[in-house]
Amino acid sequence: MLLEHINQPEDLKRLSLTELETLAGEIRQFLIEKLSVTGGHLAPNLGVVELTLALHTLFHSPYDKLIFDVGHQAYVHKILTGRKDKFDTLRKYKGLCGFVKRSESEHDVWEAGHSSTSLSAAMGMALARDLKGEHNKVIAIIGDGSITGGMALEAMNHIGHEKKNIMVILNDNEMSIAPNVGAIHNYLSKIRSDRHYLKAKEEVEHLLKKIPAIGGTLAKTAEKLKDSLKYFVLNGVWFEELGFTYIGPVDGHNLPVLMDTLKQAEKVNGPVLVHVVTTKGKGYTPAEKDSHTWHGLGPYKIESGQVLKPVGQPPMYTEVFGNTLIELGEKDSRIIAVTPAMPGGSGLLKFAKQFPTRMIDVGIAEQHAATLCAGLATEGMKPIFAVYSTFLQRAYDQVVHDICRPKLNVTFAIDRAGFVGPDGETHQGVYDIAFLRTLPNMVLMMPKDERELRDMMQTALEYNDGPIAYRYPRINGTGASIDLPPKAIPIGTWETVREGDYAAVLAVGPMIQVAETAAEQLAKEGINLRVVNARFIKPLDEAYLLQLANDSTPIITMEEGSIQGGLGSAVMEFFAGKGIIGLPVKVLGVPDYFVEHGSVSEQREEVGLTMQNLIAEVKKLMPRKRQRA
Amino acid sequence: MLLEHINQPEDLKRLSLTELETLAGEIRQFLIEKLSVTGGHLAPNLGVVELTLALHTLFHSPYDKLIFDVGHQAYVHKILTGRKDKFDTLRKYKGLCGFVKRSESEHDVWEAGHSSTSLSAAMGMALARDLKGEHNKVIAIIGDGSITGGMALEAMNHIGHEKKNIMVILNDNEMSIAPNVGAIHNYLSKIRSDRHYLKAKEEVEHLLKKIPAIGGTLAKTAEKLKDSLKYFVLNGVWFEELGFTYIGPVDGHNLPVLMDTLKQAEKVNGPVLVHVVTTKGKGYTPAEKDSHTWHGLGPYKIESGQVLKPVGQPPMYTEVFGNTLIELGEKDSRIIAVTPAMPGGSGLLKFAKQFPTRMIDVGIAEQHAATLCAGLATEGMKPIFAVYSTFLQRAYDQVVHDICRPKLNVTFAIDRAGFVGPDGETHQGVYDIAFLRTLPNMVLMMPKDERELRDMMQTALEYNDGPIAYRYPRINGTGASIDLPPKAIPIGTWETVREGDYAAVLAVGPMIQVAETAAEQLAKEGINLRVVNARFIKPLDEAYLLQLANDSTPIITMEEGSIQGGLGSAVMEFFAGKGIIGLPVKVLGVPDYFVEHGSVSEQREEVGLTMQNLIAEVKKLMPRKRQRA
Repeated sequence: MLLEHINQPEDLKRLSLTELETLAGEIRQFLIEKLSVTGGHLAPNLGVVELTLALHTLFHSPYDKLIFDVGHQAYVHKILTGRKDKFDTLRKYKGLCGFVKRSESEHDVWEAGHSSTSLSAAMGMALARDLKGEHNKVIAIIGDGSITGGMALEAMNHIGHEKKNIMVILNDNEMSIAPNVGAIHNYLSKIRSDRHYLKAKEEVEHLLKKIPAIGGTLAKTAEKLKDSLKYFVLNGVWFEELGFTYIGPVDGHNLPVLMDTLKQAEKVNGPVLVHVVTTKGKGYTPAEKDSHTWHGLGPYKIESGQVLKPVGQPPMYTEVFGNTLIELGEKDSRIIAVTPAMPGGSGLLKFAKQFPTRMIDVGIAEQHAATLCAGLATEGMKPIFAVYSTFLQRAYDQVVHDICRPKLNVTFAIDRAGFVGPDGETHQGVYDIAFLRTLPNMVLMMPKDERELRDMMQTALEYNDGPIAYRYPRINGTGASIDLPPKAIPIGTWETVREGDYAAVLAVGPMIQVAETAAEQLAKEGINLRVVNARFIKPLDEAYLLQLANDSTPIITMEEGSIQGGLGSAVMEFFAGKGIIGLPVKVLGVPDYFVEHGSVSEQREEVGLTMQNLIAEVKKLMPRKRQRA
Repeated sequence: MLLEHINQPEDLKRLSLTELETLAGEIRQFLIEKLSVTGGHLAPNLGVVELTLALHTLFHSPYDKLIFDVGHQAYVHKILTGRKDKFDTLRKYKGLCGFVKRSESEHDVWEAGHSSTSLSAAMGMALARDLKGEHNKVIAIIGDGSITGGMALEAMNHIGHEKKNIMVILNDNEMSIAPNVGAIHNYLSKIRSDRHYLKAKEEVEHLLKKIPAIGGTLAKTAEKLKDSLKYFVLNGVWFEELGFTYIGPVDGHNLPVLMDTLKQAEKVNGPVLVHVVTTKGKGYTPAEKDSHTWHGLGPYKIESGQVLKPVGQPPMYTEVFGNTLIELGEKDSRIIAVTPAMPGGSGLLKFAKQFPTRMIDVGIAEQHAATLCAGLATEGMKPIFAVYSTFLQRAYDQVVHDICRPKLNVTFAIDRAGFVGPDGETHQGVYDIAFLRTLPNMVLMMPKDERELRDMMQTALEYNDGPIAYRYPRINGTGASIDLPPKAIPIGTWETVREGDYAAVLAVGPMIQVAETAAEQLAKEGINLRVVNARFIKPLDEAYLLQLANDSTPIITMEEGSIQGGLGSAVMEFFAGKGIIGLPVKVLGVPDYFVEHGSVSEQREEVGLTMQNLIAEVKKLMPRKRQRA
């Protein structure tokens, strides 16, 4: 095994081309085997084996900066930079991160999780290099999906203008997570597919030589004409016009060609874009055939390609959302679903099939998606922006400025709210409560189970007084019956899940089940904990809160969201506004740091969002009888 | 006067071309006169007189949707849609809004203030139109600065793909607010300036006809060759490759040509981009000569073009920031200033002149700017992102994901924090406290005067433990001496501005002066109000708070920021975390709605951020003696 002897990038430089190709095969085998146990982003990494080998062989990391966009395709990079022994812990608690991570290795010069950041980072590093008078290479590796994100386009506009030495590797696998959309994608397809175009280049050059020199008034025009033929002889004019030298397309699995091309690119002065065509899942048939499923997944059987899935569990919230949206969509033609490149992850594939014109996939473009919804709403439609909590962060300004401010009827279906498990800190959905509830005109809900999610979807549909959001977690439902037609919930009303007068826990979403089990335990000790489903995070159920204050019931809030600015703060702000003083409020939530990858239950355990901790907090409260005395 | 008889767009349709040209002159005169008294965005509006006239003459607003990007260039639109009598109240409290505003007129089908939203809105409206089976036109008018904002590029990628009937008017005045930067800008310049290129078109077409038909194996190639000549014959290939039909460039002040071009564009199937070249400030010499100054300004003398400025006031915070940055920059070469198209507004012009390679203007691209700073920080530089509070909203995710999470040493110089006066609700800087203080690793400060701003800049420079921000208002300083060299402030320390034991007001920024005057008044009645400069919004001065709690001092917080999630909430979260119960906290700030345009003092008055209201709130507190008893 060659791989055994590869512990750092320098080790690659001793290998022959043939050995590198052998190593590529070993790395593929390594990935297929390791990920069959841990799960992870298999297909993207199988696609970049040769590319990563070529980069680490030709360049000198970390002196040269390799910047992986998103970073879920950096497993090969991790293998080559001394971390291959840690792959058994991939994406596990305290284990190897599934993305690039600066604290893991000096070779991880940039880290991400969200897409489209690499070109801006590259520009920053290139500016710093030039100011410091250094000469390292700066190389960004970005997918064809990521490059259409707004901030990547902003960066290209800037890079092309400033003419810094930056190499952009466009890893074109013809899809991001979902089949790619957009005009830039069409443009790339044209370049890729037009084989005649490629073949004809030589013929044209031949033809050009035959055109006789033209004199007189037409000379300048003829010159221009010849000049214009660069559009024919060159591919990638779109990139050229942006100030890049375009090289490609090149087969990303042909190591010799790839290495030659990169050497050629290295010599270019100014920004250069190398268009590398790769196959997602390359070398493992099941992943090549269905790169959507194999983009990121759990454990699987290598031989059969069977993905192992837990059975007999209630449906995920995502699935309930998708199915319910079809029910609602059948009755109300104003419903339009909008997704930023996540039709599968958001449970919208069936909806798209049934209502192809009412399902808008804008690609990786959260800002555009949000304001597109605003535009739809101005014309009386009922747009539903289906988005992960963490990606909604990208559209914060559009939510404030284009939706909340003009009070437009946009619905936010916020998936993966709360802890997300193995994707870890870049993907935690723990800030949306803090950033949405502070915005005027916003209604923000979270359901206690999948039935209530359906009811909230109905609530949002019937609501016509501005933006409204429901957030739901990346877990299975509770098994609640979802047979009944959904029914709207009065805005701003909470629900008593369990009576009690010792203290009240105001819980949201999955925390309600945690609170219920705590209450059951406490009841055995004669402590009656009230459990409240605080399903409206905004507006609060003010009558309910006033009643609790009136009864002097101590309050504990419990949310899978940032303590800073969350539900607990909202409750305290309400009491402060009413001049209500002296009521204890204990806030349980996510403390002021970024919680890393692991399972959702490990993440909850780490921050104390558990039954045990809730019981402990209740017991810390002054006994009610003494309080009243 | 023709203008007297124009009360709605229909009135234009009766006018001849000559009359429309006369009307254009009258509108210019109207704008120059009215704005000489009220101030406003003169130059942008003088630039679009003919364009707006042409659009309203040819199309049928509001059935056809005219979507103005940003909206500060919609004065002519307002004049033509029944609002000319309200121009004396422009940008004044309860007066005509300086931007497009849906509540003002049915002709304002979209509203903004931030740039680059119009194409997304247009796409939403076009999708809704097609789903409803209607046939109205959807027309977005966007500047050459705005079109390079990431969300506009996202929208173009989507529009070009979907092939909807949308007309984009690219209003190219060769600059946004500052001279434009970026590769797209360079590209537009090339199109505009290459007069030979334009002239040669006919010659090439002539030449093409002379090329004999070619048979045999070269036939297909020759076909391709001819096809490739579209790149020569057509301008705007970059847009064409994105799926748009490009028409232009056309002189935006030649009404007959403009109207003919728009008629031609109307016939295009699918998305069409009309490249209109205009002159900012057209028709008023001072504004044409210096469109930067005349972009948006206060009152001026028409004859001399003298801009009237208040004299004898202390410098604006912005100016102190800019001058101090030069001082710091001279001593520390790691300092790099980054601005998203606001070098003037952010006080950076002098810095740019002195350190041209250390001043990075990225154009309208807040997301890229923030992550570019992150990239610079990874390489040991000290980037300073100079940005208005309201525009920082565009980079929320980049702040969370690319800066706070990896704990990079990026400094945020947040200008126009708090109320901004006449720009109104789209530009209020009242959410940054709520959205920044809830993020892990962030340090957030606000100075009480211009001297403390300098000290905070020094503090940020010396701080090396992650992101740090100072926010300052869009007002003049207090006149504090700024002669001493700046000195770092220990992180997380507050300052007692005035002793007192009746109650403590924790104030930030300009609210400290308000609190001081209130304390002076109260002292006359024997009430000793403690005034605390809560200059660190994060981290709080915990020792100070514990002392106040220990002394049972009632607390009032006072900030020009959202009550929801602001400093008051931070204080309550701290007490709740410590289990401190029973201490009254009253929160004064911006309530849960969007505060409209007016003067800063009118805006403060409206929400109760005044001396009078603070005095009233202090008096509402239970007398201290009785409390202690």
